[in-house]
Amino acid sequence: MTIREYVGAHESALRADLDQWLRIPGISAQPDRHGDVRRSAEWFADALRRTGFPTVEVWDDGPWLPAVYAEWPSADPDAVTVLVYGHHDVQPVDPIELWHTDPFDPTVDGDLLRARGASDDKGQLLFHLLGLQAHLAATGRATPAVTLKYVIEGEEESGSPHFEELLVAHRDRLDCDVVVVTDTGMIAPDVPSTVTGMRGMVAATINLHGPDLDLHSGVFGGAVPNPATAVARLVAALHDEQGRVQVPGFYDDVLELTDQERELFARVPSDEAGFLKVAQSRALAGEDGFSTLERLGARPTAEVNGIGGGYQGAGHKTIIPSDAFAKISFRLVADQDPAKIIKGVEQFVAEQVPEGITAGIEWEGPGVRACLVPLDTPAYAALSAAISAAFDGADVLPTREGGSGPEAALQQAVGVPLVFLGVGLPDDQIHAPNEKVNLSMLYKGAEATAHLWARFAEVGRDALRGSVR
Amino acid sequence: MTIREYVGAHESALRADLDQWLRIPGISAQPDRHGDVRRSAEWFADALRRTGFPTVEVWDDGPWLPAVYAEWPSADPDAVTVLVYGHHDVQPVDPIELWHTDPFDPTVDGDLLRARGASDDKGQLLFHLLGLQAHLAATGRATPAVTLKYVIEGEEESGSPHFEELLVAHRDRLDCDVVVVTDTGMIAPDVPSTVTGMRGMVAATINLHGPDLDLHSGVFGGAVPNPATAVARLVAALHDEQGRVQVPGFYDDVLELTDQERELFARVPSDEAGFLKVAQSRALAGEDGFSTLERLGARPTAEVNGIGGGYQGAGHKTIIPSDAFAKISFRLVADQDPAKIIKGVEQFVAEQVPEGITAGIEWEGPGVRACLVPLDTPAYAALSAAISAAFDGADVLPTREGGSGPEAALQQAVGVPLVFLGVGLPDDQIHAPNEKVNLSMLYKGAEATAHLWARFAEVGRDALRGSVR
Repeated sequence: MTIREYVGAHESALRADLDQWLRIPGISAQPDRHGDVRRSAEWFADALRRTGFPTVEVWDDGPWLPAVYAEWPSADPDAVTVLVYGHHDVQPVDPIELWHTDPFDPTVDGDLLRARGASDDKGQLLFHLLGLQAHLAATGRATPAVTLKYVIEGEEESGSPHFEELLVAHRDRLDCDVVVVTDTGMIAPDVPSTVTGMRGMVAATINLHGPDLDLHSGVFGGAVPNPATAVARLVAALHDEQGRVQVPGFYDDVLELTDQERELFARVPSDEAGFLKVAQSRALAGEDGFSTLERLGARPTAEVNGIGGGYQGAGHKTIIPSDAFAKISFRLVADQDPAKIIKGVEQFVAEQVPEGITAGIEWEGPGVRACLVPLDTPAYAALSAAISAAFDGADVLPTREGGSGPEAALQQAVGVPLVFLGVGLPDDQIHAPNEKVNLSMLYKGAEATAHLWARFAEVGRDALRGSVR
Repeated sequence: MTIREYVGAHESALRADLDQWLRIPGISAQPDRHGDVRRSAEWFADALRRTGFPTVEVWDDGPWLPAVYAEWPSADPDAVTVLVYGHHDVQPVDPIELWHTDPFDPTVDGDLLRARGASDDKGQLLFHLLGLQAHLAATGRATPAVTLKYVIEGEEESGSPHFEELLVAHRDRLDCDVVVVTDTGMIAPDVPSTVTGMRGMVAATINLHGPDLDLHSGVFGGAVPNPATAVARLVAALHDEQGRVQVPGFYDDVLELTDQERELFARVPSDEAGFLKVAQSRALAGEDGFSTLERLGARPTAEVNGIGGGYQGAGHKTIIPSDAFAKISFRLVADQDPAKIIKGVEQFVAEQVPEGITAGIEWEGPGVRACLVPLDTPAYAALSAAISAAFDGADVLPTREGGSGPEAALQQAVGVPLVFLGVGLPDDQIHAPNEKVNLSMLYKGAEATAHLWARFAEVGRDALRGSVR
């Protein structure tokens, strides 16, 4: 039986599993749903046991919400060890009134299955189980050709606040030769691709303090410094006219795109109209000299996530506010160092703040480095070949995502190459109402998984490990 | 009996009245206190009747909170008619925990009487009643030398939202030859002065809209316009490096200070340390080339009263916000026209907003013109002489206030000269916890009132009216 035949014969089993799991509203951001996060972990642990994993554990021995760990050793003593990362928690569903169906009552409409978590990330984890069974069926093996470890987080949608602690606590279980991250997507159903980079991030709240109390803007207006004006000037000074970030040293360590990489970016079908529609934006913007895909994948940014100060209600209150703030996140690319960027931002703020205003900066932790998959490595070649096989030999395009995830921390913890196998689509509405997944993409993902384990086994441990960037 | 003897003999009566009235918490900004605003109006109406006013009415025949109107015609058929403006409502008391005494249980500590409304404006209205009695006693008259009308508003501390409607509804009762506004202050107990200008104002909320929903700043960051950045740039562009407002045509109609006026400003005792202490600010700021007093009294401004957009809570949410806003008020000076400034701001916003961002502007009504008292008029001369007489012949300095009040609307409605007689002090904490009044200043105010009615009577109707600016 071929991989495709096996997957084709078991599509309904994947759908049935997905229908059960998606009914559990494991929203990690809502404390009143943390019981459901646990139920979600336990449901997936059971599914792993049913699949045949001899070791399955729910990790709740730390401040993190329940995570699932599973291990299935290959009978081959020299087998490659693969660590798969994903997450079982889901996004909140607000604004609930914009959903056309109950987010936790999955509905199938042709190829589309609609529910919260269908694409992000439950559907993608379940294609792994089907893919593993196809791998065993197609190879006639009783154990996988590679030793498989799964670490499935329960608070990714809350920003993985304790993931680094979990990695430290369970480091002894996580030895591996390659990491496969399954939480990303492809360009289009007929354009197979794989993520090869995610941006890093540092984020800060910058608090500016002026007069020690809100002042009457008639009695004092025009004669004392206004922190709301100061925060506006600071934000305005963040970018120059060319859209370049003005933090000292910001671009010093940026790995510039090579001609080959720019050529690959240019080969990705460009759909600016589609991008604007998904963004619900009326215009593009950004750093001069780069395409939208390059801006998102390969260029660092500074974005204001929130700005505030003074009167926020209806109508007017004629005050000079005492305080104002800006919440700013900086997306980083390889090889920017979060610690150096933090220093640069602190220098920038100190230089921008006018006389009479004091500034305080609260950082959201030490930041996360960018994660970049080199294209000239055995791990990437195996992944690319496995995906191509699932898509009838089509070329696989490397892409980069603009977001930041726990991948960089994971890779740093285990020190081995990392690749991305994900089959989400740009219109999956993963953090929005009416999330869906294309079932046909999940079946492709299962096929790619089955091919990938065989490919990794062929490459072998030494070749895989030798390709750490 | 001289004016001073009469006032000196009746200080305790003023204190007793004030003690009663200050116990009524007539906070116009709080709907649950509107019953107290009515009680406050009725208390003052009774006080006017006790003083001898033959006509006293509580006006509650419109959307405004109860206002008090009183009239005492002079027996002299050619008498000057004086319209006195003040207000009986008070500011809220929050933050209540910063008060050292109950704001509605007046306490006397030497010359200081502490309570909400002691200075703003109940104490000042009560010196008028004592002053009128002193005027009658000193002149031996049964009726005042001038016909007196009092219009005492009940929602000044809420921004006088219905005062113009009240003026229209009762316009037939308000004919007069001169207006006296009693709601301001002097430089210091030993530096008698009078306000000669108040700034006008227009205020707007500028709403900027970017993408139609909050976007993930990883997935979209660096590729679409961010309205929080746009609002920051708009605010940053409001002023140039010299602190001049960049709205087109903003300074076109500004009446520049004459050398004589600048000389008068320079004579006002300068206390920048004291100003910074009251403002609780660590620095001065403002338009280059002007002193702090000039900036506050004679120069127009643009101040951000509130700025907002995107995530406002603790920690971070990595979004590109869909919306951002700035609440901006422009203080105006003579002869700026609010309608022209509104047009200029609309042009400024249209020029500043980048591609992909849409702007909406909500104006807080049509705005208020500045109010300026010319110094070379009989009305000003009479006021200055009356104050000087109360202060043993001291020079009376003209000052200007930076705030905006209903005075301009009142003057526009009645079309006669207007002067300010007020005895508040800079440290009265009038919109803050621990409001107080110096009782000795109230007695001076009573004396000045008594002198003023006699002076106005001497000047006569034609001379007074001839001095409308």
